[in-house]
Amino acid sequence: MAKDRVAALDAHWRAANYLAVGQIYLMANPLLTEPLRPEHIKPRLLGHWGTSPGLNLVHTHLNRVVRERDRNTICIWGPGHGGPAVLANSWLEGSYSEIYPDVSRDAAGMERLFRQFSFPGGVPSHVAPETPGSIHEGGELGYSLAHAYGAALDNPDLLVACVIGDGEAETGPLAGSWHSNKFLDPVHDGAVLPVLHLNGYKIANPAVLSRLPREELDELLRGYGHEPLHVEGDDPLRVHEELARTMDLALDRIDRYQQEARRAGRAGERPRWPVIVLRTPKGWTGPAAVDGDPVENTWRSHQVPLSGVRDNPEHLRQLEEWLRSYRPEELFDADGRPTGAVLECVPEGDRRLGANPHANGGRLLRSLPLPKLEEFAVDVDKPGTNLHEPTKVLGGMLARIMADTADRRDFRVVGPDETESNRLGALYSATGKAWQADVLPTDINLAHDGRVMEVLSEHLCEGWLEGYLLTGRHGLFSSYEAFAHIVDSMVSQHIKWLRISRELSWRAPIASLNYLLTSHVWRQDHNGFSHQDPGFVDHVLNKSPEVVRVYLPPDANTLLSVADHALRSRDYVNVIVAGKQPCFDWLTMEQARAHCARGAGIWEWAGTDTGREPDVVLACAGDVPTQEVLAAAALLRTHLPDLAVRVVNVVDMTRLLPHGEHPHGMTDREYDALFTSDKPVIFAYHGYPWLIHRLAYRRTGHRDLHVRGYKESGTTTTPFDMVVLNDLDRYRLVMDVIDRVPGLAVRAAGVRQAMTDVRTRHHAWIREHGTDLPEVAEWTWPG
Amino acid sequence: MAKDRVAALDAHWRAANYLAVGQIYLMANPLLTEPLRPEHIKPRLLGHWGTSPGLNLVHTHLNRVVRERDRNTICIWGPGHGGPAVLANSWLEGSYSEIYPDVSRDAAGMERLFRQFSFPGGVPSHVAPETPGSIHEGGELGYSLAHAYGAALDNPDLLVACVIGDGEAETGPLAGSWHSNKFLDPVHDGAVLPVLHLNGYKIANPAVLSRLPREELDELLRGYGHEPLHVEGDDPLRVHEELARTMDLALDRIDRYQQEARRAGRAGERPRWPVIVLRTPKGWTGPAAVDGDPVENTWRSHQVPLSGVRDNPEHLRQLEEWLRSYRPEELFDADGRPTGAVLECVPEGDRRLGANPHANGGRLLRSLPLPKLEEFAVDVDKPGTNLHEPTKVLGGMLARIMADTADRRDFRVVGPDETESNRLGALYSATGKAWQADVLPTDINLAHDGRVMEVLSEHLCEGWLEGYLLTGRHGLFSSYEAFAHIVDSMVSQHIKWLRISRELSWRAPIASLNYLLTSHVWRQDHNGFSHQDPGFVDHVLNKSPEVVRVYLPPDANTLLSVADHALRSRDYVNVIVAGKQPCFDWLTMEQARAHCARGAGIWEWAGTDTGREPDVVLACAGDVPTQEVLAAAALLRTHLPDLAVRVVNVVDMTRLLPHGEHPHGMTDREYDALFTSDKPVIFAYHGYPWLIHRLAYRRTGHRDLHVRGYKESGTTTTPFDMVVLNDLDRYRLVMDVIDRVPGLAVRAAGVRQAMTDVRTRHHAWIREHGTDLPEVAEWTWPG
Repeated sequence: MAKDRVAALDAHWRAANYLAVGQIYLMANPLLTEPLRPEHIKPRLLGHWGTSPGLNLVHTHLNRVVRERDRNTICIWGPGHGGPAVLANSWLEGSYSEIYPDVSRDAAGMERLFRQFSFPGGVPSHVAPETPGSIHEGGELGYSLAHAYGAALDNPDLLVACVIGDGEAETGPLAGSWHSNKFLDPVHDGAVLPVLHLNGYKIANPAVLSRLPREELDELLRGYGHEPLHVEGDDPLRVHEELARTMDLALDRIDRYQQEARRAGRAGERPRWPVIVLRTPKGWTGPAAVDGDPVENTWRSHQVPLSGVRDNPEHLRQLEEWLRSYRPEELFDADGRPTGAVLECVPEGDRRLGANPHANGGRLLRSLPLPKLEEFAVDVDKPGTNLHEPTKVLGGMLARIMADTADRRDFRVVGPDETESNRLGALYSATGKAWQADVLPTDINLAHDGRVMEVLSEHLCEGWLEGYLLTGRHGLFSSYEAFAHIVDSMVSQHIKWLRISRELSWRAPIASLNYLLTSHVWRQDHNGFSHQDPGFVDHVLNKSPEVVRVYLPPDANTLLSVADHALRSRDYVNVIVAGKQPCFDWLTMEQARAHCARGAGIWEWAGTDTGREPDVVLACAGDVPTQEVLAAAALLRTHLPDLAVRVVNVVDMTRLLPHGEHPHGMTDREYDALFTSDKPVIFAYHGYPWLIHRLAYRRTGHRDLHVRGYKESGTTTTPFDMVVLNDLDRYRLVMDVIDRVPGLAVRAAGVRQAMTDVRTRHHAWIREHGTDLPEVAEWTWPG
Repeated sequence: MAKDRVAALDAHWRAANYLAVGQIYLMANPLLTEPLRPEHIKPRLLGHWGTSPGLNLVHTHLNRVVRERDRNTICIWGPGHGGPAVLANSWLEGSYSEIYPDVSRDAAGMERLFRQFSFPGGVPSHVAPETPGSIHEGGELGYSLAHAYGAALDNPDLLVACVIGDGEAETGPLAGSWHSNKFLDPVHDGAVLPVLHLNGYKIANPAVLSRLPREELDELLRGYGHEPLHVEGDDPLRVHEELARTMDLALDRIDRYQQEARRAGRAGERPRWPVIVLRTPKGWTGPAAVDGDPVENTWRSHQVPLSGVRDNPEHLRQLEEWLRSYRPEELFDADGRPTGAVLECVPEGDRRLGANPHANGGRLLRSLPLPKLEEFAVDVDKPGTNLHEPTKVLGGMLARIMADTADRRDFRVVGPDETESNRLGALYSATGKAWQADVLPTDINLAHDGRVMEVLSEHLCEGWLEGYLLTGRHGLFSSYEAFAHIVDSMVSQHIKWLRISRELSWRAPIASLNYLLTSHVWRQDHNGFSHQDPGFVDHVLNKSPEVVRVYLPPDANTLLSVADHALRSRDYVNVIVAGKQPCFDWLTMEQARAHCARGAGIWEWAGTDTGREPDVVLACAGDVPTQEVLAAAALLRTHLPDLAVRVVNVVDMTRLLPHGEHPHGMTDREYDALFTSDKPVIFAYHGYPWLIHRLAYRRTGHRDLHVRGYKESGTTTTPFDMVVLNDLDRYRLVMDVIDRVPGLAVRAAGVRQAMTDVRTRHHAWIREHGTDLPEVAEWTWPG
């Protein structure tokens, strides 16, 4: 490479490094037009320097190849806590000032850029939604590579570079993500170029991968299916040359693999995609030593290498020397604008990494072609008579959407090896399961270009889908309910991302992240206690109410209606909990639509309170609790025909929240109209019972709200025994009614005893026969 | 190997397979003494056949090497859902009948063994606490290898075999666990022998690793630091020979590596520990095809290969043929006892895998030598004057425990690269950080035999510690608060394990799993929004109350007291949330002990209600809320001296629960004595505010309980701005008091306005200066 081109790359890199240091330290005198004084220094020094020079290096070199090749490219910055670096680059390329005009590309803007960083009222210290070109925070480490693959899926022209820190590389999710290349179709998907950045250290420790012998690391990366390309050094000019050469080599190979596959019209042998292993010092170009301790190329450069700048003249001097070592006078003109040499490598318009529309996916989003629900709805002549597997019914609708997006390719379903088990197998009539590894004759439904993604890793499913949605597409994650907890922290981060994105007018809304949680707590027939955990709902309901929606459809048609709504929605996280086992049909499609639109409502046909005040409200949320409540209502109708029983079903859990706390929350008037303000409410809930109290504690009638739900009692047993173990069964609910309705205790003592007797019979019967009482097994709604 | 010895191994394996099938299908006629009839078949067919023959094979061969070498060995069964296999082996070796005498090692016991499996009132379908020899459930996949390493640490004589399914191998946590060998000291730790079982399929898909070319898989395993040893086939006798030879080879190598290191007295070059790659068909020896579809060696054998046995005569015939193919008449005598040939390979006494005391760790547990807290306590002449970093004070105590267990080696501290950042660096005076990879001259505190474990993976930290505790040792996990969510699902499984273990008299209590959550939501100065999540506490409080404890010590001395208690406790999960930033000292050590023993109490010195009924209660839990409440109390004392303010601090969150719902729960009388039953309570809580309502909703005074806490507002800003953003600041609390105490609204309107004014000044000041108001920054308790 010609010397002047290397010099230009170096100029860009130095400029970015200068701007990164400036953001961490300066609130004035951004161009060092005067000697540095304590009052130019921020009062609180916050941020992460250590990773920044490496990120700047990669950004500089990506700029070059993107510009030279006019290559559609985004980058995932795994070490996103190096916010100063990505902000610096966005400012240099101009995308920052286009979005935030007050942070102009001149001296005044530079001062604002510096000052606002990690400053109250300013911008966060990490890459964040506020950062142009980003779809990945990089605060909680582990998900960069999965996000990168998600972004590349169904984007054949897109290159997704992905910087992976050697710290992040130690996490389980990242270690598992390498195998994503077994799911990437070189024909229909774009490419991922991982850059494993070995700067050697984490906060306080060496990083494992950086301390492996070269051969062992190469074996690891080859074992992951990659061909490693090494760049190593601490002489900037030599590293620039090597990295430029290596990036060209990597992109040439990627182009060749893609062209070969696309010429052939289908993927052949799985390519050994390149991975760049970049080994440069942590905190490179920063202070070599501070107060006698080595800093550059050690963990001590992780955050703020010089911590006492305001009070310690030696630190101040070192900072000034450090800043001036980048020769800012060569990089910025007198007005603070980057010089031509600095900008020589920078691409233009939407090709800039900070301006690529794929990193603002809502700009590319098209609404899904959603079919009429009536085509998939089940017929319901009479409630509680026929049984359907709700997720199987939904599977038909999803298959249609999959078929109708065959050309657009903007819809995927992910799941940890459970799509078939979760009764969504109809999807395979429309597409296969993505698979680039070997195929045997006995295999079914595997396909190079499949848009169902199955891997036994909830982390990968979640990461892929997040990356896919953030780049403007649609999808659904189906999972066993209990194991959604595996991605608790990931969904927290996604909700935080959406929460902030929604406040940024320049970020276009993206499709919601939709969970279908099935194989739920009440039906873990093959697995038992370890698979029983309905708490994911509790977890997401702790997060920003603007973003979170939770639905518990009680049957097949309501599931269709809820799913349709979720797939139309934007910028939400929708959690849908629904069973895969045969479940009574309660509502016609028309009734289901109306009921789901209200989110909660009285089922008049099930109650005995028509035309009169109820004596008691039987409320339910979830398919199994709904069945038990209706069975209880039927028992009450038989045994206590005078009792005015109201049956209320809740589909949308956030309806229970106060109106002021969630956009879906009911007003007190609405709530009381359903639940009354003074009658006992027996609430059969799908999950942990106290969640209902946490949602409804402010309601007038709260004192007389009695909730049954899952209380960590379970094993491998029958479905009905499960509800008995947790006191959620129909007989217990009738007893609850008798115990709570004033005056019933004496009058209905016989009924209560009868209920106790059935439960006793149940215990004896099941231990003898291993099945449920015939009267339970054969029950249908008598109404 | 001699033919008769192979035949004996095969007899044991066939017996185990027979017993596994019997458990899934039979409730009578266990020895097939008569032709199989529908009434011998269980009404509900549940369980996982597919993995069982592989687990049986490994168990058979482990038996042999353990017996021949008298090798102290346990095994982690990653595919623990193959419960029938592990139960079969325990029954064969006799350990099962010793623990459960009614399931005797004869025909009657065999029938009970069969019947109880996945039967109501029986035993779970997975490996579970009820299973002898187990410390790992294997239901939620991903943690087997981390558990294995945890068990091996500081157990130099122990061999921990670990079967990893090719499904589990796809999970992130498992993928990350392979690097655990960089932390295993061949001198002081035992050995882990991973057996990667490639049976090719998950529930409905091929497994990724099983479809890699052999060379690629070998590169992967070598890259993980292992030397792969392959065993492959579907001819039982040849596989027996190969596996026996390979196991001997693996154990010889392990012995050699350990002997070399121990002779030298310290670890040398990191050994390339062996890994056995076992490739055998899924559902091996089961039906080759059912209803025309191939079953053996496909995913269709995952659970119950013949599903219609009771009603489908052809299925019944196939089942009988399948069972008889094991030639039970050769394996069991007329009384149903295993024959001599079957038991030839089985070890005796505590060497049996189902009887090894390491898998019932409480049997080996010794109490920790805990120092006097007074040696580490901070002096408190006057509350709220001096500042200490609580976790740093705790670090001194932990260092002492580490020093005092230098010979015993039964205490470890794990953390994701944050031990120093979390101010526990004093530990390095007593031990180093475990590290077997390369060491550079600039490194500090790394040591082959270190007992601090640092890796950037919460999954590994959790898995190692669980394995360590379950085998009878002690430890602590320190983590950033927000990222504890990464192990939400893991702690759920551990709590479930403890919950069941506590009910089993033969399982001796083990040391509690202790979390120190620090770098908490209020002090994420360098990181901001992504690092703010106090919800781990909410998550664990959903689980079994017998097991869960949550502590929020408000200062250094209370942290010492709480940690001391946690380290003495057994069979709990203790979550301690405490700050690492300078925090006011409030209580002397003596006061702290008394306060922590009560779990919640009135701080009379801070209130103005001495000798009179309070007008309002200011309650707090957590270090930052406590500071704000005391500052509010000081403001009220100045501005509204007549107001009787009571200050209540809560350390033990479960005290707030009703007495009947948690062993620590207060009676209503106790609760009212603290909080009153009719006065407004302003509660400043560390985390999500609704948690307090979820705990206290049944209390008489609940209607007048007003909680402030974290409501997902945050960014990179000052500590005080964080509390303002979330309405938890002292000024807002004073306003809350004025708004809630009847009659104050008018009388204290001026005070309220003054509070509003300070908040307004704060907003202006901080955006100008980037720091907190001087009156906040310099505040100390005036009392």
